[in-house]
Amino acid sequence: MGGAMLLGLNHLGIVVRDLEAALSYYVETLGLAAHDREDLPAAGVRLLYVETGSGTIQLLQPIGPGPARDYLGQHGEGPDHICYTVADIPAALAALAPGAGVPIFMGGRGRRACFLPGRHHGLRIELTEAEPFQPR
Amino acid sequence: MGGAMLLGLNHLGIVVRDLEAALSYYVETLGLAAHDREDLPAAGVRLLYVETGSGTIQLLQPIGPGPARDYLGQHGEGPDHICYTVADIPAALAALAPGAGVPIFMGGRGRRACFLPGRHHGLRIELTEAEPFQPR
Repeated sequence: MGGAMLLGLNHLGIVVRDLEAALSYYVETLGLAAHDREDLPAAGVRLLYVETGSGTIQLLQPIGPGPARDYLGQHGEGPDHICYTVADIPAALAALAPGAGVPIFMGGRGRRACFLPGRHHGLRIELTEAEPFQPR
Repeated sequence: MGGAMLLGLNHLGIVVRDLEAALSYYVETLGLAAHDREDLPAAGVRLLYVETGSGTIQLLQPIGPGPARDYLGQHGEGPDHICYTVADIPAALAALAPGAGVPIFMGGRGRRACFLPGRHHGLRIELTEAEPFQPR
């Protein structure tokens, strides 16, 4: 049961072939602002965030092997995942996917993150923490 | 140019085959709250909204001919559109799709709405007003 585990929509992750071309649409055509470009080589993606005013879109360009490249090959450009904010990834996994052995990784902007097993209504479900991870 | 036209992410629209089955996942598994079930026969959809805490998901089940049924037939269940809030649909269309002849319709929850032409990175782009429409 996930009651009270999810604190809100963190971002919608959209896989694109070319980050610059996609950015042109979101910034120049739609007039939105972009920030925090970064590469996550272990995940095979280059990331960039688009702010809508309320709600964030994460654009992902594959730069190596991984789920984003697989998605692009199978579906073309499109929405790959929805990410929810949680307070604590291990606690959320214990409630939402107990015993599934889901790997926790360092996601965008220094936040711990994980993906729940499977796809649901076409989307992978990511969880991420609200604040950058500070090892104790 | 869309500068300052878009006021935020209104909802992510996900087409599902069976609203009750989808609802079970969002409410019972993820612990989120749902509200405002309604039918829009002219658009061929039954709608329901899921609140994430910050950000809204609109679930759409096809109940007649229209884009949602077409999407389901072509792609299966999945994210069909992203909807942005605007202050005024005609003004936003004049800025974002001048001369495109985009139809304005009465969308969910009594708001005026429209879809911009085409798909962008796999998603249709909907615009809707923040408040229910009050004809003057």
